Amino acid sequence: MKVIAFLTDFGLSDAYVGQMKGVALRICPEAKLADITHGIPKYNVLWGAHILRISRRYFPKGTVFVGVVDPGVGSERKAVAIVGEEGNVYVGPDNGLLYPSAAEEGIKAVYELNPEKAGLPEIAHTFHGRDLFTPAAALIACGVNPASIGRRLSADDLVKLPKIPRKPKVMGEAVRARVVYVDGFGNIITDMGTSELRNYLGVKLGGIVQISFDGGRTWVSVKYGRTFSDVPEGSLVLYEGSHGLIEIAVNRGNAALALNPARDVLMKKAAKQLNR
Amino acid sequence: MKVIAFLTDFGLSDAYVGQMKGVALRICPEAKLADITHGIPKYNVLWGAHILRISRRYFPKGTVFVGVVDPGVGSERKAVAIVGEEGNVYVGPDNGLLYPSAAEEGIKAVYELNPEKAGLPEIAHTFHGRDLFTPAAALIACGVNPASIGRRLSADDLVKLPKIPRKPKVMGEAVRARVVYVDGFGNIITDMGTSELRNYLGVKLGGIVQISFDGGRTWVSVKYGRTFSDVPEGSLVLYEGSHGLIEIAVNRGNAALALNPARDVLMKKAAKQLNR
Amino acid sequence: MKVIAFLTDFGLSDAYVGQMKGVALRICPEAKLADITHGIPKYNVLWGAHILRISRRYFPKGTVFVGVVDPGVGSERKAVAIVGEEGNVYVGPDNGLLYPSAAEEGIKAVYELNPEKAGLPEIAHTFHGRDLFTPAAALIACGVNPASIGRRLSADDLVKLPKIPRKPKVMGEAVRARVVYVDGFGNIITDMGTSELRNYLGVKLGGIVQISFDGGRTWVSVKYGRTFSDVPEGSLVLYEGSHGLIEIAVNRGNAALALNPARDVLMKKAAKQLNR
Repeated sequence: MKVIAFLTDFGLSDAYVGQMKGVALRICPEAKLADITHGIPKYNVLWGAHILRISRRYFPKGTVFVGVVDPGVGSERKAVAIVGEEGNVYVGPDNGLLYPSAAEEGIKAVYELNPEKAGLPEIAHTFHGRDLFTPAAALIACGVNPASIGRRLSADDLVKLPKIPRKPKVMGEAVRARVVYVDGFGNIITDMGTSELRNYLGVKLGGIVQISFDGGRTWVSVKYGRTFSDVPEGSLVLYEGSHGLIEIAVNRGNAALALNPARDVLMKKAAKQLNR
Repeated sequence: MKVIAFLTDFGLSDAYVGQMKGVALRICPEAKLADITHGIPKYNVLWGAHILRISRRYFPKGTVFVGVVDPGVGSERKAVAIVGEEGNVYVGPDNGLLYPSAAEEGIKAVYELNPEKAGLPEIAHTFHGRDLFTPAAALIACGVNPASIGRRLSADDLVKLPKIPRKPKVMGEAVRARVVYVDGFGNIITDMGTSELRNYLGVKLGGIVQISFDGGRTWVSVKYGRTFSDVPEGSLVLYEGSHGLIEIAVNRGNAALALNPARDVLMKKAAKQLNR
Repeated sequence: MKVIAFLTDFGLSDAYVGQMKGVALRICPEAKLADITHGIPKYNVLWGAHILRISRRYFPKGTVFVGVVDPGVGSERKAVAIVGEEGNVYVGPDNGLLYPSAAEEGIKAVYELNPEKAGLPEIAHTFHGRDLFTPAAALIACGVNPASIGRRLSADDLVKLPKIPRKPKVMGEAVRARVVYVDGFGNIITDMGTSELRNYLGVKLGGIVQISFDGGRTWVSVKYGRTFSDVPEGSLVLYEGSHGLIEIAVNRGNAALALNPARDVLMKKAAKQLNR
């Protein structure tokens, strides 16, 4: 029994996800359907790729992942199925969404989907998720060889995008990172990993980091902790979150409401520590 | 193995949908549960009926559909199960929500549900979705004959509402349609079909349509394309969307934010084309 | 075949719920996964406990419930599995979230989860829902004895919180209750049960209640009905809702938008009735 796991930027208000699920059940009734999320910010292929990559490891081996963050739907961009070396398959647009996951697993084979073999009889120009990607994934989940519904490509031909985490930019004694996401709790997620924090700022667990969202005019001190409750209720904490990235939160509060974050965040080691 | 597919205006913040799923699993553990959507705008029976009708074809034959957009819950409106000629069953309130789907499939039989036979032992006056419609659907999914939990009605007795798409109103050289929905991408969906666009305005694919949301005071030119990427990033495009209706979008943007649509939209062929 | 049913305050925009589902399917592929809701207001353990308690009865016997409203994640609070006398199991933080459900069912045994036996190899300090509670629940759903992944506790050791419904505070001829939730329809849900309404105010079905959200300066008259359609469209109605609590709604409208409710609501019997 195979799992088909969906990741999109469709949200759940509309019937787009529901129709994809219907198609999957129609083509492969025995598949188990699961959602990674449908809340990827619209058109944000980069973040979708990161979430798919960090989420895939929690699913059973042999899962068929359908990823649809697809601003170029209906254009010339390819539709692909990538078979991984551990048995997972990644189906979606060739726009960089699937590549980091597949590359991390190891790429066994890449196929460009043939809409006539892999898709529904009618394919809407605006909805390949329903009419091409999901049918292809459901066929594969039910045992169809991807080679029979697409033509072989080289992994070199796949579109690649910059990967998260990224190196911060050094600016004097501070570094500049990017805010890549704010989650439903208001936790502010940066594109910086823990090793970057330690290497560039030299701050240890329990130390203090100063952060600025206005280019360095005002700074806020934040404790570098392990979890929310390492600081008092209502206080800021900086920690490695479950996305594998440095996050800023308020214990039992909403950091995004408290700080009104901009796209760039500057970080530096607090002076007190520097003087030690 | 049967699929039970849900469509409601309940949203997903509350536990209403979750409780319905529990009831379904309790009564018919082997059923597969699926969601069409729970994001139908509150009380909008007309749009719910359209979404159910265009979505049903993507589900396996023999699906039991539970539709709950039910502003009259607890009142005199009937609770019904409609058996379709292709083997699907539609369960919900008799308020026009189910009729277009059932009529399109062909109506084999209609039953008014008997709450004592079809419902839970206690039926909340405000939540027939959980206490009556879902139990009835789960019984039917597990093989119970609808005739044994309800009494036969004539299809003529069912409530019918106007159907989408609708004919636009001709107003000089323009036509007036209605905005029936704005989706999560900000795409503006009208109640006009493609044949109406072509017949009334005589615009061909690739042509230009002028649209107005303020009764004709200001007009915006929009290309009639096949998909978003038929226009440059940030530009407006008018196209037949996956709802089978004329939609207006911004390529990689949000048309509702750009245009602030009112309920009525006027459309006319661009002058340049008329002079050709 | 076991059901694992999830209740959290995670929302559905992020991938947190999706990763928990993946973990469950990986550990116990034959489990059926269901959602009660992920829309519990952030950190509101009290409301989460109420929703879990009123929802659990709709699920099949033997369901493993995973509850995660967990502001103290990563702190000293215990992780527990509570086995109920009817065969359900409740897994989550020991912060009062699970207790009302388990106590209502009857508590057979309580175990403090051993992260090394019950959790994933790596446990994020900020996400026990994915790395500890869900793995434990999936093991239990697949037949593992909770005693083998935790150590026995006494039910007396569990954290207990005040229970909903609560007694209103008598203030002259009025009573004061609390607004505990506003649902997706804008229905205003109080912490007062029907028996409290009848006992303290002496209002009968069909009678009129006066309510105030500003400490008694202004009052609005509301009919005490059974369901929305007991009042004309657009009118207020007070009724026992499906949460087992007194709610205030607008028939086919949004009471929260109409009334802008504060945290406290005063209620008194309308003068006309008192004079009868």
